[in-house]
Amino acid sequence: MKALLLKNLKSPLIPTVIPKPKATKNRSRIKLSFAGLNRRDYWIQQGQYPRIDLPVVLGSDGLGIDETDGRRVFFNPGLNWGENQASQQPEFQLVGMPDQGTLAEYISVPADKIYEVPDHLTDPEGACLPLAGVTAYRALFIQGRLQPGQKVLITGVGGGVASLAVKLALAKSAQVYINSSSDEKIETVISWGCINGWNYRTDLEWLQNAKEEVGGFDLILDGAGGETVKDYIDVLRPGGRLVAYGATLGPWTQVPAAKVFWKQIHLTGSTMGSDQDFADMVDFVREHQVRPYVDRVFSMDEANQAFDYLINPEAFGKIVIKINAH
Amino acid sequence: MKALLLKNLKSPLIPTVIPKPKATKNRSRIKLSFAGLNRRDYWIQQGQYPRIDLPVVLGSDGLGIDETDGRRVFFNPGLNWGENQASQQPEFQLVGMPDQGTLAEYISVPADKIYEVPDHLTDPEGACLPLAGVTAYRALFIQGRLQPGQKVLITGVGGGVASLAVKLALAKSAQVYINSSSDEKIETVISWGCINGWNYRTDLEWLQNAKEEVGGFDLILDGAGGETVKDYIDVLRPGGRLVAYGATLGPWTQVPAAKVFWKQIHLTGSTMGSDQDFADMVDFVREHQVRPYVDRVFSMDEANQAFDYLINPEAFGKIVIKINAH
Repeated sequence: MKALLLKNLKSPLIPTVIPKPKATKNRSRIKLSFAGLNRRDYWIQQGQYPRIDLPVVLGSDGLGIDETDGRRVFFNPGLNWGENQASQQPEFQLVGMPDQGTLAEYISVPADKIYEVPDHLTDPEGACLPLAGVTAYRALFIQGRLQPGQKVLITGVGGGVASLAVKLALAKSAQVYINSSSDEKIETVISWGCINGWNYRTDLEWLQNAKEEVGGFDLILDGAGGETVKDYIDVLRPGGRLVAYGATLGPWTQVPAAKVFWKQIHLTGSTMGSDQDFADMVDFVREHQVRPYVDRVFSMDEANQAFDYLINPEAFGKIVIKINAH
Repeated sequence: MKALLLKNLKSPLIPTVIPKPKATKNRSRIKLSFAGLNRRDYWIQQGQYPRIDLPVVLGSDGLGIDETDGRRVFFNPGLNWGENQASQQPEFQLVGMPDQGTLAEYISVPADKIYEVPDHLTDPEGACLPLAGVTAYRALFIQGRLQPGQKVLITGVGGGVASLAVKLALAKSAQVYINSSSDEKIETVISWGCINGWNYRTDLEWLQNAKEEVGGFDLILDGAGGETVKDYIDVLRPGGRLVAYGATLGPWTQVPAAKVFWKQIHLTGSTMGSDQDFADMVDFVREHQVRPYVDRVFSMDEANQAFDYLINPEAFGKIVIKINAH
C-alpha cells in the first residue's frame, strides 16, 4: 500500500510502498479515506519530540471504513492510558509513532479503540476530531470542570484544540470569550456564538478591557503558557481555574503566588484523555451535533505543503489530508 | 480592661486600658485566658499587610470562658466568608484588625462563631488552634483532597500551619514526609510518625533523594513559593497536587508548564477556610485527638518578645500569650 514515510528528521515525507497491515483477532483493519494532522506530527518531523523512532508513518487521526463490518469509523489514538483517570501511565503512546499512523491507505488498530463516526459529521470533520476532541474535552470538562452558564476564556483560538474547545464549550451552554492575534479569526469564532473576543496583538489593553467587561472568568483554557499566565491570574475570578494543555511559549514566568493562594486559584495541566474521556467526548459530540472547524483539505501529494501550513499563522482549526490513492 | 495596643507601625505593642466590649443579642463576650499568635500579627505590626487600620488590638486566636454559659471556648476568626465554598467574598476579614483582637482581657464575637474546645486540648493548645487549624485543614483536605495512604510532603515544617498540617495528615493516615532547614525540627516531627524528612539547606541532593525514596508525592503542601516550586513539580507523581497557602519566598519563577500539562498536575491556592471548613476541622481534631505543637508560652508583659520570636528561625509550631492580667 502507499504511505507517506518520514525517513529523516527535518526532511519531507516520501510516498513509499509498504506492506499492508493485517487484521488480527483483536485488531481491525480500516481502509482510510481521510487523515487529520496535529501539531505533534510537525514537531516529530522537526525532531522536537521525545523518543523519536524512524522511519515512521505519522498521523494520529483518521477516518475510513472498518473492513470487518463496513461501518464508517474513526478511533481513539491514545494507547495504554491505563485505569487511572487522573493521569496516563508511562506506557501511554499515540498512534503515529512508534506505530504506523494514518498517512497511509490502511491502518490496523485495536478493535476496542474504534468508534462509529456520528452521522452529522462529514468525512473530513470526522477525520480530524479524535485527538483534538479528546484533548479539548478533558481540558474543559474533566480538568476544567466547566459548567453551563460559566464564563470561559479560550486563548489562541486559531489552534485545532482551541477552536474545537470553543464549539464544545458553546454546546455546554457556557459563556465563551476568546482571544487571538487575528481579527478575522475572532470575527469568525464570535459568529459561532461567543460573547466577545480580543486581539492580544493589537489591543494592548485587552486584559483590562476583558476584566471590565466580564468581571472575572471561571475558567481559562490555554495552550501557550509563557509570561501571559501571570496576567491570566488577574482576570480569573476567585476560585477560578486555568487549564493548560500546551506551552508553545515556554515556562510560566513569575506566577504571582500570593494571588494564587489569596484567590484560591487552580492551575491545572491536561494532556489528551483517557479511554473514558474519549468515549464521553464522542457521545457529547453526537448529542450536541458539534462539528470541528476544518480549515483546508490537502491531497496526499500535497502532504508536505500541509505540514508547512500547520505552523502558518493563517492556519485556523484543523488540517486534513485526503487519502486519495486507492 | 487591659489590652495590648498597636498604635504605630513598626512599634512595640503598648499595654493600654480600653473599654470592655459588650455582649449583645448576637454576640457573646469571652473572658480570655490565652491568645495564639500568627504571622499575620507580625506582618501587620511591620506594615506589610493591606488596609491596616490603627490603632488596633491584634490577635486572631484566643481561648477563654464564654460568659453566657461558662463553657471553655474558642472561635472561628474568619468573618463574612460567604456561602461560596470555593473562595471567600471580598468582605471577608479576620478578627484582630480592623475589629479588636485577642490580645486583651475580653473579646466580643458573634455567637455563631463560637465552639466549645475539645476536651483533649490544653488551654494553650486550644488557644492557637483556630486559624492555623482551619488553614491547614482546608489546604490538605479541601483544596488538596488528601486521602488515607497517600504520600504528602509538607514543606518548612517549623511553621505554625505546617506543623499542624503534619498532625492532621497523620491523623488522616497519610504517609507524611517533611522538609526543614533544621535537623532538630526534622527529628522531632519524624518522632510524631512521619516517614522521613530532608534538610533542604544542608542536603543539596535532597530532591533527588526524596524522588528515589518516595517515587512521587500525591500532594505537596507549601507555604514558601519562590523558585523551589519548579523542583516540586519534578517530585510530584503524575496527577499530583501542590497546594500553596503562602508565598514567603515570593512568586513562582519558571514553572515548567510542559511538565504541568504532561503530568496532569494541579497547582492550587488555599487561604484560611469557610465556616463549614472550620466546623469540620474542629470535628476532625476532636475525633482524632489532634494537638497543635506549642513552642512557647509568653506572658502579656513579654508580648513584644513573643512578636520578635515569631520570626526567629528557631521558632517551631505555635506561640501563645497568657492573658494574665485579670
